[in-house]
Amino acid sequence: MTIWFDGRFSQDAIGRLREGTREHRLIVAIEAVASHLIQPSRDPLLAEADIAFGQPNQDDCLAYPGLRWVELSSASYTRYDTPAIREAFLKRGAILTNSSGVFAEACAQHLVAMMLALGRQLLPSYRDQLADRVWPSAERRSRSGLLNGQAVVMLGFGAIGRRLAGFLAPFGMRLFAVRRRTHSELAVRIVPEEDLTRVLGLADHVINILPESDSTRNYVNSRRIGCFRPGARYYSVGRGATTDQEALLEALLSGRIGAAYLDVTEPEPLPAGHPLWTAPNCFITPHSAGGRSDQDPALVDHFLLNLAAFASGGELHDRVV
Amino acid sequence: MTIWFDGRFSQDAIGRLREGTREHRLIVAIEAVASHLIQPSRDPLLAEADIAFGQPNQDDCLAYPGLRWVELSSASYTRYDTPAIREAFLKRGAILTNSSGVFAEACAQHLVAMMLALGRQLLPSYRDQLADRVWPSAERRSRSGLLNGQAVVMLGFGAIGRRLAGFLAPFGMRLFAVRRRTHSELAVRIVPEEDLTRVLGLADHVINILPESDSTRNYVNSRRIGCFRPGARYYSVGRGATTDQEALLEALLSGRIGAAYLDVTEPEPLPAGHPLWTAPNCFITPHSAGGRSDQDPALVDHFLLNLAAFASGGELHDRVV
Repeated sequence: MTIWFDGRFSQDAIGRLREGTREHRLIVAIEAVASHLIQPSRDPLLAEADIAFGQPNQDDCLAYPGLRWVELSSASYTRYDTPAIREAFLKRGAILTNSSGVFAEACAQHLVAMMLALGRQLLPSYRDQLADRVWPSAERRSRSGLLNGQAVVMLGFGAIGRRLAGFLAPFGMRLFAVRRRTHSELAVRIVPEEDLTRVLGLADHVINILPESDSTRNYVNSRRIGCFRPGARYYSVGRGATTDQEALLEALLSGRIGAAYLDVTEPEPLPAGHPLWTAPNCFITPHSAGGRSDQDPALVDHFLLNLAAFASGGELHDRVV
Repeated sequence: MTIWFDGRFSQDAIGRLREGTREHRLIVAIEAVASHLIQPSRDPLLAEADIAFGQPNQDDCLAYPGLRWVELSSASYTRYDTPAIREAFLKRGAILTNSSGVFAEACAQHLVAMMLALGRQLLPSYRDQLADRVWPSAERRSRSGLLNGQAVVMLGFGAIGRRLAGFLAPFGMRLFAVRRRTHSELAVRIVPEEDLTRVLGLADHVINILPESDSTRNYVNSRRIGCFRPGARYYSVGRGATTDQEALLEALLSGRIGAAYLDVTEPEPLPAGHPLWTAPNCFITPHSAGGRSDQDPALVDHFLLNLAAFASGGELHDRVV
């Protein structure tokens, strides 16, 4: 088979890819793109490919019927989530996968890090260290909490939520997740969307892991924030556009919610003058939740595992279409 | 029975204590002391007590043979860890317990918080938020790591280490603990002290949970730090005196170790001018690892559980003598 890839990986990862695809023909895109956030140019080389790995141009995905499998090197697939691509892929029996498994592990650990850091007052302690180096032991201790017995509501539930549930299992929390398909999951109570209001009122931690789509834009709006328990903490690691930032700002300023942790914002980067940067109890990281130092080799490993499955007619991981 | 307590608890906790000891006689110390770090005065009321709960004066513990059980409201029992008290208690069949169970849960969660916060670059991101609000997404992502597959060496292994091992189980790490008694533990490889040098060389995370004693003072010294893997992270939540701070400072300045997280220092508070505050990759919290907002009711619950065991001749939790 001929495998096209867009060359965005580190040298060691490319070596791993060459090694793992020796039985096939590997061709490199004319233009290597640095980030999946940049719209890729069209590439006539894709006409020769059976498989594309990276971020092929979406018109090319439609134009070349020889393309039987596309693996995206990102978790996001918004650009490819069009009726035209879905229809064309279904018609020709082609497969679209993303690499969400690579990022899910990091995102879930990032979420646990955020939850515990807030609970253990690590950020105010660090702020003191950077400033006047006081030693407010009694105050920090009395504000520090345990996760035990607290309730978590996840908005959206997929690979990230499943890993998060695994990491939180030893803490003895009550875990809920809201999603459309309500089949049951081990140790997580799956709740249909019509019960959202009720379950939001139980949550000590509301965790937004939603992808971006027409139905999720501004999903966490003032009406839904109004259903939060007073003092609840909000975490957002999916896409910035799923949070109504005006409504969130208001809830932080009024003290209605306890804290917000945003790894994603609208827009990104969040402009330095944006009021969320200085809102009380609002903590922002630069879209780093999914990051991992071994990202490129991990993406290649994910692709090679799927390649083996594709070659043998098995099930591919993280299939989108 | 007559139960003396030193009155240091919050009103709701005292209510809980009164409620839970209705069948007994509860007497309150002449002087309520705010912290276990303060040397308590002697109290003649202890002459009437069968049980003391709090921080009784250590000479009183020796002077009143009617005292059959002392429960300390702290994890620390350094003040009571004397040959005279051990001998007297053994002789009269008296019991000494501490409240380490109350603090172990918080300490273990604090350690996971520290490990993940470092791994996920939460503190540099927060520093940026407090300063110039840049958005170094690519840099943070490439420096963010996963705990999976990394090795942890715990120095000392008791209630905290056991909970820590439970919390870390889903991350797929390799867990080692060094302690004198080397009987085996589920999922943790217990290593005798003579293998310390070898096992320190494996560790991505060295976690010091040692209590303070003559044999642990400056336990983590330049010789042992010299055995760490380059770039290893060091965490100290036991007692400040178990770390040779000069040696640690040197290892941070030279970049020999990757980071240090100190919740305990020598002395406490650490003076604002101490060089560890500004050493590279050194993070300090004000002895807050064991803190929990529900500390007082949790201490009372711990005591009441032990009281039931004491009354029925059962096994007491966190027995020291």
